[in-house]
Amino acid sequence: MIAVDWGTSSFRAYRLDADGRVVDQRSAASGLLTCGGAFESVLARHVEGWPDPTIMMAGMIGSRTGWREVPYIDCPAGIDEVSAGLQEVAAPSLAGRRVWIVPGLAYRPAGAWPEVMRGEETQIFGLPGELAERGAHRICLPGTHSKWVHLEQGRIVSLSTAMTGELYALLRQHSLLAVLMPPAAEQDVDDGAAFLRGIDASGLEGGLLQHLFGVRSQGLFGSLSPAQSPSYLSGLLIGHELRAVGTGTGQVQLVGNAGLVRRYQRALAHLGVSSCCQGEALSSCGLHRLARARSLPLGT
Amino acid sequence: MIAVDWGTSSFRAYRLDADGRVVDQRSAASGLLTCGGAFESVLARHVEGWPDPTIMMAGMIGSRTGWREVPYIDCPAGIDEVSAGLQEVAAPSLAGRRVWIVPGLAYRPAGAWPEVMRGEETQIFGLPGELAERGAHRICLPGTHSKWVHLEQGRIVSLSTAMTGELYALLRQHSLLAVLMPPAAEQDVDDGAAFLRGIDASGLEGGLLQHLFGVRSQGLFGSLSPAQSPSYLSGLLIGHELRAVGTGTGQVQLVGNAGLVRRYQRALAHLGVSSCCQGEALSSCGLHRLARARSLPLGT
Repeated sequence: MIAVDWGTSSFRAYRLDADGRVVDQRSAASGLLTCGGAFESVLARHVEGWPDPTIMMAGMIGSRTGWREVPYIDCPAGIDEVSAGLQEVAAPSLAGRRVWIVPGLAYRPAGAWPEVMRGEETQIFGLPGELAERGAHRICLPGTHSKWVHLEQGRIVSLSTAMTGELYALLRQHSLLAVLMPPAAEQDVDDGAAFLRGIDASGLEGGLLQHLFGVRSQGLFGSLSPAQSPSYLSGLLIGHELRAVGTGTGQVQLVGNAGLVRRYQRALAHLGVSSCCQGEALSSCGLHRLARARSLPLGT
Repeated sequence: MIAVDWGTSSFRAYRLDADGRVVDQRSAASGLLTCGGAFESVLARHVEGWPDPTIMMAGMIGSRTGWREVPYIDCPAGIDEVSAGLQEVAAPSLAGRRVWIVPGLAYRPAGAWPEVMRGEETQIFGLPGELAERGAHRICLPGTHSKWVHLEQGRIVSLSTAMTGELYALLRQHSLLAVLMPPAAEQDVDDGAAFLRGIDASGLEGGLLQHLFGVRSQGLFGSLSPAQSPSYLSGLLIGHELRAVGTGTGQVQLVGNAGLVRRYQRALAHLGVSSCCQGEALSSCGLHRLARARSLPLGT
């Protein structure tokens, strides 16, 4: 089968054998925003030469701005509910192969805003069996919008989102704080001590809106250098995220790109919380498990 | 005398009689950023025809990016300390008139970041005497960077800053939240009910980073319309600011532009805090008081 992780800004395809092992893979800058709606032809181009009968896709491709808006499945939901919600899209040019999109998940707690995700549920189903099928686990997928998920006996029971990465990028690039930082964010150094200072500052009185001003004032007074300021800001925001989700409970399973996961692991350790890194290429495993649960043909 | 309020993006000059009453005024888009360092010639142009012997200036004109960086005076500080910190700048082309810049204030609490302001101290000294000289008062100057000040017996004893207005502008213009709002921020309607919903949401569990995502998810689910979203976001951020400074203590004196002050007054009332509006044209009164305290010639 073919597993596709298709997001707003990236496209990754994996060819899997019948056991779900990756035998080939392709990636491209063909995120949704670049496709101009021509999803079928973009997909056909990227899977050329892979004749497998089933194509499974996860991510924002199933959102309002994607190929088809696939309705959210409500939490609690496990592999059975999500695979039952798979929707097939017509793709005549793909010569008889069937193309499926994974639904996102919604969590609607009483008295608060609804929470949603698309793509992360598939990564979670791709975790090793002792996490994905048994026990109670707290999972964090850090990123532009960090997701926090409670998983119990293989079912996602709740989720929440923190806009940490997006706020960091906004403040780093467009705010008055950026004036006291080096011009090119790409060249920022990762200053471990400044990062931990930021985490400590997130626990002070006054709340985030006040703490942010401290980045500027310490820059003005020279107690935070331009090179240190980005790491301090990152620590401040991640510290706020972690304190808000609660640091009192057990181990956190971290899923995502290695650099960001290391940063979260350092922050959690600083706050006395243990964590495990679960790698980043979980989507293909999750898509394989979902296809199996739906009894779709997996190829040879 | 001439009173000048000179900030990063605006310039306002007032001609005052000996009692401090405004007899003429001029404003221009000659903020610091537009002057290219030619502060003396810009000032000379704007005060042409006003022959008064003393020119007093407050605001970012006294900062590192202004005419001269005038060192901060440490809190607690009253009219005497601040007037003693006035610095004269040479302005030969102003034909014998003397030009002074008001210092900013710094508050350096142990174990936290330093707090600073430039310009707001002068507005505070321009409050009516029963506030500016006697009693204990809590003052809020909402804006890009909202300032909160404790004033006791005419002395500023502490201050704090919340980056509420800047964060609102960043999120309204550049974030993924903006995607679900009308394109032109200038045409946003002030939706009172959505604003109060945002204030209520700021009191929920989870912290600001999570609450921000709620603007998006409620937009996705249609429980917050594009037209309502900006007001909701404003309420959310102002709610966080107010809860962080504490809503348990007494009346708040609000200083600033009428629209923003009304918005804060509504938010405070919703949280059970009474407030008074103190108008916005206080700088000239404060500059007059500072000149008098320094015994500078006030003209006839």
